[in-house]
Amino acid sequence: MKGNGHKMTTRHSILALMFALLSGSLGVASSHGAQSDHLDLVDAQGNIRKPPDYRVRYQALGVYTVLDPKGNEMHYTYASPGTAEFYGKNGRFADGTVLVKEVFATSHARLTTGDAHWAESTKVWFVMIKDEKGRFPGSPLWGNGWGWALFKSDAPDKQIATDFKKDCLGCHIPAKETDWVYVRGYPALGAK
Amino acid sequence: MKGNGHKMTTRHSILALMFALLSGSLGVASSHGAQSDHLDLVDAQGNIRKPPDYRVRYQALGVYTVLDPKGNEMHYTYASPGTAEFYGKNGRFADGTVLVKEVFATSHARLTTGDAHWAESTKVWFVMIKDEKGRFPGSPLWGNGWGWALFKSDAPDKQIATDFKKDCLGCHIPAKETDWVYVRGYPALGAK
Repeated sequence: MKGNGHKMTTRHSILALMFALLSGSLGVASSHGAQSDHLDLVDAQGNIRKPPDYRVRYQALGVYTVLDPKGNEMHYTYASPGTAEFYGKNGRFADGTVLVKEVFATSHARLTTGDAHWAESTKVWFVMIKDEKGRFPGSPLWGNGWGWALFKSDAPDKQIATDFKKDCLGCHIPAKETDWVYVRGYPALGAK
Repeated sequence: MKGNGHKMTTRHSILALMFALLSGSLGVASSHGAQSDHLDLVDAQGNIRKPPDYRVRYQALGVYTVLDPKGNEMHYTYASPGTAEFYGKNGRFADGTVLVKEVFATSHARLTTGDAHWAESTKVWFVMIKDEKGRFPGSPLWGNGWGWALFKSDAPDKQIATDFKKDCLGCHIPAKETDWVYVRGYPALGAK
């Protein structure tokens, strides 16, 4: 009996350890999960919130550097986890995909490789959520297959766009053929 | 006995199921896991391979754009999964962290926001692997707390650095105070 009790204890310990490992590792798998519906960022009226911790949790698709005598900018685009893998397989963005474009003012210095420019401070964020279902036909912030939102650094949680055609679409016209997204500058979408 | 046998079968089935789930989910946890030892990229002599699929699997820490009349460049830095979270908590890179700096030639066009530059084609890759243990004291490619490697686009799998002090360190001198890495240009390390 003593030997059997020992075996049972061992078995229970193994079970407990496996449960602990399993729940922990499933937590990781879930937080990195691919095509979950990111409409948890959207309320019943179609108002979009900015996702938390996107710099760490999201994939960085790529960066555009815009040179402007009035102040250079770097535009980082982050995407919800799994976006690059889905795009690589299907050539399109999955329904529910969240894109965050963070526009930075830059600093620069002459470093060992030359005149190096980097992202210094955030100016604005644009958020887009892929919508294949036409979820908010009455909202002026949803259309052309996406939900659209704009946040400025002086009030980072306040969505301030009122009409995506007026506030957002203008800048996206050159990218109309690629679902309004500037995919050609994003190495992660042409992944190697 | 029959009842007991049934219980045992159930228990074994649960165990088998858990093993299956566990190995699957640990696979995910491991590929996304934070501080796993990435020395699977290193052979017994300290030779470093370039990690596969880093554009999708790794975190993009940030980008430097280097303006040069002879040809602008964009320098993307990718890090093994979990690097940004660990750095955010501990202010340093975990032992085994892998960094890939991919240097691109750029294209540019006058788009709606101005003169926009983006990454076009890869020129070289630099790979660093954090080494707190001084694993290869006799190798000229390991030192100053890192393993160092260099690959060029004409032979992307051929490591060509011979001495990190000669081939790598020169460009990193301005970043000595931050463990030889240009952390100030990496939004993911000062994550918000």
